[in-house]
Amino acid sequence: MGMRWLWLLTLTGLFGPSAPQDLFTHVLVFPQKTNDSYVLVKATPEQPLQNFSVCLRSYTDLTWPYSLFSYATKAQDSDIALIKRRPGEYQVYVGGKSVSFPVPEETPMESQHVCATWESSTGIVGFWVNGKARPRKGTQKGYTVSNEAVIVLGQKQDSRTGSFDASQSFTGEMGDVYMWDSGLSSRDVTAAMYNSPLKTPIFGWRNFPYETAGEVYLKP
Amino acid sequence: MGMRWLWLLTLTGLFGPSAPQDLFTHVLVFPQKTNDSYVLVKATPEQPLQNFSVCLRSYTDLTWPYSLFSYATKAQDSDIALIKRRPGEYQVYVGGKSVSFPVPEETPMESQHVCATWESSTGIVGFWVNGKARPRKGTQKGYTVSNEAVIVLGQKQDSRTGSFDASQSFTGEMGDVYMWDSGLSSRDVTAAMYNSPLKTPIFGWRNFPYETAGEVYLKP
Amino acid sequence: MGMRWLWLLTLTGLFGPSAPQDLFTHVLVFPQKTNDSYVLVKATPEQPLQNFSVCLRSYTDLTWPYSLFSYATKAQDSDIALIKRRPGEYQVYVGGKSVSFPVPEETPMESQHVCATWESSTGIVGFWVNGKARPRKGTQKGYTVSNEAVIVLGQKQDSRTGSFDASQSFTGEMGDVYMWDSGLSSRDVTAAMYNSPLKTPIFGWRNFPYETAGEVYLKP
Amino acid sequence: MGMRWLWLLTLTGLFGPSAPQDLFTHVLVFPQKTNDSYVLVKATPEQPLQNFSVCLRSYTDLTWPYSLFSYATKAQDSDIALIKRRPGEYQVYVGGKSVSFPVPEETPMESQHVCATWESSTGIVGFWVNGKARPRKGTQKGYTVSNEAVIVLGQKQDSRTGSFDASQSFTGEMGDVYMWDSGLSSRDVTAAMYNSPLKTPIFGWRNFPYETAGEVYLKP
Amino acid sequence: MGMRWLWLLTLTGLFGPSAPQDLFTHVLVFPQKTNDSYVLVKATPEQPLQNFSVCLRSYTDLTWPYSLFSYATKAQDSDIALIKRRPGEYQVYVGGKSVSFPVPEETPMESQHVCATWESSTGIVGFWVNGKARPRKGTQKGYTVSNEAVIVLGQKQDSRTGSFDASQSFTGEMGDVYMWDSGLSSRDVTAAMYNSPLKTPIFGWRNFPYETAGEVYLKP
Repeated sequence: MGMRWLWLLTLTGLFGPSAPQDLFTHVLVFPQKTNDSYVLVKATPEQPLQNFSVCLRSYTDLTWPYSLFSYATKAQDSDIALIKRRPGEYQVYVGGKSVSFPVPEETPMESQHVCATWESSTGIVGFWVNGKARPRKGTQKGYTVSNEAVIVLGQKQDSRTGSFDASQSFTGEMGDVYMWDSGLSSRDVTAAMYNSPLKTPIFGWRNFPYETAGEVYLKP
Repeated sequence: MGMRWLWLLTLTGLFGPSAPQDLFTHVLVFPQKTNDSYVLVKATPEQPLQNFSVCLRSYTDLTWPYSLFSYATKAQDSDIALIKRRPGEYQVYVGGKSVSFPVPEETPMESQHVCATWESSTGIVGFWVNGKARPRKGTQKGYTVSNEAVIVLGQKQDSRTGSFDASQSFTGEMGDVYMWDSGLSSRDVTAAMYNSPLKTPIFGWRNFPYETAGEVYLKP
Repeated sequence: MGMRWLWLLTLTGLFGPSAPQDLFTHVLVFPQKTNDSYVLVKATPEQPLQNFSVCLRSYTDLTWPYSLFSYATKAQDSDIALIKRRPGEYQVYVGGKSVSFPVPEETPMESQHVCATWESSTGIVGFWVNGKARPRKGTQKGYTVSNEAVIVLGQKQDSRTGSFDASQSFTGEMGDVYMWDSGLSSRDVTAAMYNSPLKTPIFGWRNFPYETAGEVYLKP
Repeated sequence: MGMRWLWLLTLTGLFGPSAPQDLFTHVLVFPQKTNDSYVLVKATPEQPLQNFSVCLRSYTDLTWPYSLFSYATKAQDSDIALIKRRPGEYQVYVGGKSVSFPVPEETPMESQHVCATWESSTGIVGFWVNGKARPRKGTQKGYTVSNEAVIVLGQKQDSRTGSFDASQSFTGEMGDVYMWDSGLSSRDVTAAMYNSPLKTPIFGWRNFPYETAGEVYLKP
Repeated sequence: MGMRWLWLLTLTGLFGPSAPQDLFTHVLVFPQKTNDSYVLVKATPEQPLQNFSVCLRSYTDLTWPYSLFSYATKAQDSDIALIKRRPGEYQVYVGGKSVSFPVPEETPMESQHVCATWESSTGIVGFWVNGKARPRKGTQKGYTVSNEAVIVLGQKQDSRTGSFDASQSFTGEMGDVYMWDSGLSSRDVTAAMYNSPLKTPIFGWRNFPYETAGEVYLKP
């Protein structure tokens, strides 16, 4: 299915509601590099966002760029996005602009948990890797993120081409995905790592509203 | 003996049955690079396979490619195969197609235990190194592996040449070899590492039906 | 605001007094590379300095040169300065002359605490990284540092250009800033790392007289 | 003294017997690169060898090849030999043919204990570094090592030139030298590391029959 | 002051006696690269030396060659000398000839304690780094070191030029300096590391007869 259709179908509700599930101790497996496998998250914020936070865990041996989390609005394909640009560097997008977070080389044989947070009042972007905060950075002070969005895991949304790009698709395992309309403290981050969020999220892994397309499987 | 003959003799039963042995605390030593030393495993699945799992432990200082486990059928030389392509990379073959699993550099002076598992319904391939799961991948969704097979350790079967290729032969020590017609959990993998499988295998190290050819020795 | 104006306004008192604050458990976040964001420290020594010590903690992933602490007088832009010249090397300026302190590569994911101390009688400069002393060096024996100074965090003062240079600005987080008009022992340094100075400082983090300009935020 | 003479003198008994000594807690120091310093071991097996084992400990900062243990017979200069070919690689010679054992880089500031064992019936060669077994290899299946031998530590015997080659001489410290006419288990190896052999050796460090020539000194 | 004068003044006693001091918990700081800063040790052996040992501790970030200990006699500028030739290599001079001791890379942020010992009867040179012995080497068997000497810390004496060479001067901190007219055991070395020598030295840190010249300061 082309990406343009995804946008239309989602916003017009044609995908229909699906009951959120508790995915505790499960992961989504993306076994192959494709341009048509993805996970659609079927929940969006109720209000435009002045603050947001996103956490997720991934496990992969990819060395090329891949998109973990893509929140596209009419205004911006990457109104919010979490990209692994290369081993040792994440990018957080807000309103189409990115800040880069160098991280230490991955511990071999371990999954990696990351959280990103942003506040409009200062533009400060926070970033945590496996529960440890990186130095804060800033972008898009005063910006507002729209709440009419299509949220996709494992592919990068690009309205220019209208389709996904296999070369930036995610292969591996993903889980423990959460989104909030507020900031996080380090204590909040640790709680999210253990699937026990202290604040009510917009959506979260214990109550996850999603649909898979193509080759994506839920596995223990 | 040429490899073509191996196929004929095995399938026509000329090798005759040999009582399985308990090889606990023993290893098979492949002391030299040859094209005529191998271990023939004298057991095959009763049914075609929709799922399979293979585990084994090896200890070597080889840096070139070598074949650990080769399961050849009429349809495919590498209907199932486990190849170490180079230090830091294993390949799992299903129906002649391979997926690659990067692994951390070997700990010097230690043997390495690996398990591979595959399920036809999703094509997902799992892989464990020393009991730790690598990110799952996928290949050959919907395929069925034949049960009329010749299973060889330490050499790669190649019906085009009809003989083994010394340059891909295994040199070193191998043991704790198991095969199942089902998937494995991480708990199953750990049990296999300690020669205490939780599920009944097609064949296993505590009850191993085999014959050696050339320079291969059973040693404590 | 141009840097020239900073000098005038400060010395003529136009910035007006602002009550010192206890910044314990807080840091100053410099989110972006700019030439107009800085922190002005609104306290100066009562007497010209024959001895001084400066401590601070920073957390950044910058790899280019940046200025942490800049104490400018009429005589010298860098009458005292603490510069990170590149990963693995700090520079301490006294009276416009610098000595270089190689340090081990930063531990990833950790902030770095440094102290510098100087005494006029011998010219000896001491330097501590995370509480451990580096080999002492020397410069400017017999010099006196003026007490009519403008103290800035996060930018390098340069009277030739009269403005700040974004390419040497600090991005990241800074805290636990202290200055004394005397030398420090290793015990003093450890105490400062924990915000419990043993000697009364000219200014310190528990009682910090400052004003921010541009994009600098106080955060927990 | 030329090496040719060494052979004659040894076999004709002109060196005369010398009482074995207990060298426990002592080492032989080879202080300089020479072609005339060595240790002659004055004991040989009573029968031709179908099996042998050799252990010794060395401590050096050499990076070029050097000979630790050289057992020459009429048939072969290197009927048995233990050579460090370069940092990270030992060679074991049997009947003039060698097998190579890669080892991890030496721990700085530590001596290195090695054992080599060989059995004629399979040709399998075992090798231990600091008590840990390396993957077994093989050579010279069916060969017999003569018991009329000249055994030298610290130089390589080469009948073609008839003299020692300084460029392959050993510089450093050597001790805990043992030889057996049988194989070893890992338990035997550990015992030898602590000078408490479980089997009676042909010769060993607690009862060592030797003579030094040139610059070799026994030191605590 | 030129080095030629140093020799004359010392031997003719013009420097006059100065009472030895207990320098326990103190170090000599050499803050800058110069050709006229040094420490003169005002004690010499009573007899020519058949054996000697020297220990000292240094802390520096120098990467070029520098002289720690220089014992010059009429016969030889480097009748005894301890030189750090580059990171990872010390040189010990006896009678103008040197042996080289590779050492592991320095632990960052730590001082390094070294001892050198020599005996004339075998020429064996021992060397310890932070209390651990390196493989022994040898030079100048049968030589005798004169006891009419000028002993200097931090500069290399060179009678050809008659002056010191700033490019080989020491910058950093030095302490715990001892010299004996006998050999050392590893137990002796450990005791010297803790300023508790088991044998009476020619001179030592608890009773140190010295004079500084130029920029050298005694500091806690």
